[in-house]
Amino acid sequence: MAEAEQKLANGTVRIDFATDPSRYRHWKLGIDGKVATLVLDVDEKGGLFEGYDLKLNSYDLGVDIELADAFERIRFEHPEVRVVLLRSGKPRVFSAGANIRMLAGASHAHKVNFCKVTNETRNAIEDASAGSGVRTICVINGTAAGGGYELALAADHIILVDDGSSSVSLPEVPLLAVLPGTGGLTRITDKRKVRRDRADFFCTTEEGIKGKRAAEWRLVDETTPHSRLEAVIAARSREFAGDAVPSPYPAPQAGEDKSTHPPTHAGEGREGAVHAVPLTPLERKLTPDRRDYKYVSVAFDRAARVTTITLRGPDSPPPASAEEMAGCGAAFWPLQVARELDDAILDIRLNELDVAAIVFKSEGEPRAVLDYDLFLDQQARHWLAREIRLKWKRVLKRIDLTSRSLVALIEPGSCFAGTLAEIVFAADRSYMLIGQRDGDNRLPAMIIPGDVNLSGTLAMSNGLARLRTRFLGEPEGYEKARQAVGQLLDAEAAEALGLVTFALDDIDWNDEIRLFLEERASFSPDSLTGLEANLRFGGPETMETKIFARLTAWQNWIFQRSNATGEAGALSRYGTGRKPEFDTKRA
Amino acid sequence: MAEAEQKLANGTVRIDFATDPSRYRHWKLGIDGKVATLVLDVDEKGGLFEGYDLKLNSYDLGVDIELADAFERIRFEHPEVRVVLLRSGKPRVFSAGANIRMLAGASHAHKVNFCKVTNETRNAIEDASAGSGVRTICVINGTAAGGGYELALAADHIILVDDGSSSVSLPEVPLLAVLPGTGGLTRITDKRKVRRDRADFFCTTEEGIKGKRAAEWRLVDETTPHSRLEAVIAARSREFAGDAVPSPYPAPQAGEDKSTHPPTHAGEGREGAVHAVPLTPLERKLTPDRRDYKYVSVAFDRAARVTTITLRGPDSPPPASAEEMAGCGAAFWPLQVARELDDAILDIRLNELDVAAIVFKSEGEPRAVLDYDLFLDQQARHWLAREIRLKWKRVLKRIDLTSRSLVALIEPGSCFAGTLAEIVFAADRSYMLIGQRDGDNRLPAMIIPGDVNLSGTLAMSNGLARLRTRFLGEPEGYEKARQAVGQLLDAEAAEALGLVTFALDDIDWNDEIRLFLEERASFSPDSLTGLEANLRFGGPETMETKIFARLTAWQNWIFQRSNATGEAGALSRYGTGRKPEFDTKRA
Repeated sequence: MAEAEQKLANGTVRIDFATDPSRYRHWKLGIDGKVATLVLDVDEKGGLFEGYDLKLNSYDLGVDIELADAFERIRFEHPEVRVVLLRSGKPRVFSAGANIRMLAGASHAHKVNFCKVTNETRNAIEDASAGSGVRTICVINGTAAGGGYELALAADHIILVDDGSSSVSLPEVPLLAVLPGTGGLTRITDKRKVRRDRADFFCTTEEGIKGKRAAEWRLVDETTPHSRLEAVIAARSREFAGDAVPSPYPAPQAGEDKSTHPPTHAGEGREGAVHAVPLTPLERKLTPDRRDYKYVSVAFDRAARVTTITLRGPDSPPPASAEEMAGCGAAFWPLQVARELDDAILDIRLNELDVAAIVFKSEGEPRAVLDYDLFLDQQARHWLAREIRLKWKRVLKRIDLTSRSLVALIEPGSCFAGTLAEIVFAADRSYMLIGQRDGDNRLPAMIIPGDVNLSGTLAMSNGLARLRTRFLGEPEGYEKARQAVGQLLDAEAAEALGLVTFALDDIDWNDEIRLFLEERASFSPDSLTGLEANLRFGGPETMETKIFARLTAWQNWIFQRSNATGEAGALSRYGTGRKPEFDTKRA
Repeated sequence: MAEAEQKLANGTVRIDFATDPSRYRHWKLGIDGKVATLVLDVDEKGGLFEGYDLKLNSYDLGVDIELADAFERIRFEHPEVRVVLLRSGKPRVFSAGANIRMLAGASHAHKVNFCKVTNETRNAIEDASAGSGVRTICVINGTAAGGGYELALAADHIILVDDGSSSVSLPEVPLLAVLPGTGGLTRITDKRKVRRDRADFFCTTEEGIKGKRAAEWRLVDETTPHSRLEAVIAARSREFAGDAVPSPYPAPQAGEDKSTHPPTHAGEGREGAVHAVPLTPLERKLTPDRRDYKYVSVAFDRAARVTTITLRGPDSPPPASAEEMAGCGAAFWPLQVARELDDAILDIRLNELDVAAIVFKSEGEPRAVLDYDLFLDQQARHWLAREIRLKWKRVLKRIDLTSRSLVALIEPGSCFAGTLAEIVFAADRSYMLIGQRDGDNRLPAMIIPGDVNLSGTLAMSNGLARLRTRFLGEPEGYEKARQAVGQLLDAEAAEALGLVTFALDDIDWNDEIRLFLEERASFSPDSLTGLEANLRFGGPETMETKIFARLTAWQNWIFQRSNATGEAGALSRYGTGRKPEFDTKRA
């Protein structure tokens, strides 16, 4: 099936995830004390690709990149904010959802990756609530269709204007022969717990549901006449900005996740913050085969279809105090590495579809990395330390969810300790070199497990620490890892503890790694995507894992079916006035 | 994408699920006291379709139909059996898994439905262990590849001969560019809890793993030299036949499931059974547009793509005693309806791919149905009563997992009470008629909730009673339903309690139902499959829901990708000597 590749607009050649409010084309961010307002007012002509207009507040990835950026900035640059209002800047429409012409023209790989990133953005909105106590209120004054309603579903509270026309809907199945692609079905069943037969009615009713019935069926939290809208918004903002209001939709995480207990006492809270941290632009040097950040380097071996990401440890010891940390701003090592790594991963995901495997390496002093972990542990009650940990948690989840084979290579001079060791545990496989290399007088490679690897602070989407997931079948392995916290482990010790997959001699190293990477690149990318999506997430399921595993997989399947994307499929024929033609066999 | 439809062998026009040991071509069932032995010795020329030979104990749906039948018969006809030994009748091979030429030639819909049924059969093996205390021991003396190893994974205990060549493997990704399709990945991560990096290695290593490493990695439970094999089998059989040995792999169900507590005390147990119940052939009258069983009728409206299944209530009161029940044998109403319904559902799934919606109706006296439920409750400690409930549980799960829109119509003269009411709660939607119809003097339709609807005895794959799942968002709804147990509820009462979707007047009935069914048939079958798979299973996930949602969805996607099933895909090119060609983009 030849796929017409859409061309990026304005002659650009790659999708850039770096932005800031001064460059937003689709959102307006306003801050008023504890309340931030994000107004969606999509620039029709501001599409990321050529060939479509973003009518009726419909979106593409470009709109989502700004939304994700806005939430990051609210958390770091406006730590006093407790409530985000999501509103539309257009009359009679909240959002028409993902742009259909964009979807119809996008390659399968872009569609899939677009859905994944937009899902992560919605999860980040929920993470702001669960982790930072930043509640989102969505105001629907008009129609919220498909992805528009799915965005609303990420909020803690949905207000729908009861005016006889404002409505919520998921018309994907009746209209487009696809599924709601950004978590809608799962949030209906597992977050809002709508009764399944009502959900069935709702999701097959093109025009959606409005007014009191929407509230009665729990599709929204309340309705209000237009005349009272602003008063209701103000009242809810005040309530949710108070310390005492828990989210009505607490994150359905497994018990271990330590990050979902936002502060509720003054003094621990975000309002104690005196320093905001401006997220200054990341300095990046982009060349055809490299991306160089300060602490992160990305090198593409295009012939081998392998990308190597090298993370560098800190170049100075941790600050002496929370004030000093805040004074470092975005240059504070743990924050800067996290931001750089996030940008690098997104770049590979969206712009480098041919990459089969990502190899993670590190350079630095493992004890120095652990020192930063200890510092963040000590400052755990400080809003910035907490935000940085939450940022790492999101970035690591993004790695878990990256559909490329992930390999960690642990060699002399590396610094996989604590937070950076999570990358070893996130990898599909890890290889660690035994001893020294000829002509290299650096000490043998060592890893150091830290408390952060066990505490659940950096829990995976399944709600468990990566080491907990790793040792689901051998709890004693988890206990042994716990006893090794803070210890320098050489390759054989790490292998014996089950913390790395294979410890190899220098004699075998090059051949083994080369053969493994060649083999990986020789396999079907699709079967690897499916394999990794299944093997990475043993154990409990959460709303997030349901979204990314169950829902995403069905969506991927349906996107590929001729009933949706074939020439006579519903997505292709949408807006042409011609009815789609379906193969009626049920599979 | 035109799919070459395989032709059924021997001039048959439909796949028949009815069989018995005298007709088995691929399995030999032997019983020796508490130990049953099932020997897999596939007849190469006994394929269900034309065009392939079932070499090396590879299988197609025909092989699976016999396996499923054998386990049903062990449970009903040999209640004294406590251990099933799965063995190969061929030298040097246990099973090569699903036949690749069959897969390469099958339509997408058949592949998907084949995987689903084989998954259900493996789940039924685990259900025999969890529900009836029938432990399965799998003996691998040779190679167990792909689906062959996946069959072994359904066992409670796997013995691998350590002879330098016997091995287990999941070579699907490296060899065929598809995923193991019958639960293998999930059983590795969630049943056997193999460490994820080892699982990655295992699933990408074509030749698999043998000997001690297989045991060390928990891929098998023990290894033995060939010389000791029979002694080890005898010892394990004795152990597992004892009352005291729990399954090493208890079903990871949510807490509510009441059926997974097999008897462990003499007197309650299967050994107390005096009557075996022969599963006599179901009498069926098959005509082009109907299937008529004694208590179940199936009518196809092919133009509308709607099938109506009508269930008839009991024609006599329940027996007076357990002995009398056993004396009824397979003619005992609850058992016969369950078997007929199961056969009807499988027939639609595999032979009637064009059916968009299944409409469930019933005829009879609701109190009479409830009387049978009460009888089974009273006899809950009797092995046959328990087996019948477990059979119903499996049949109802089969309905949940049927990828057709499910509708229950509750009209005057219907008998949706207790066990039969589960079908209403399994449906995507239900409609109930208010009052009487002109010219029909039957009483208005009534439903009666029973204890069986709330107890978890008939739990869904997610481990919850259907009513518990239904009311996840409103626990008070569940409590109200509990209070209504045993009460006759008319349409308005049932709607008010949230037990049916819509209560309709006679004036609206015909139009509403017709429009709904027409609309349903007009939607893309694929998007409905995905929608229903997501909406039907809110709440907790279990190994079963993971298999059917996550794994199945990925497998469906991959089956559809050109890298697997395109002309140059790995499945199509397998055995041709030509290498597959892959689109290398990762999605």
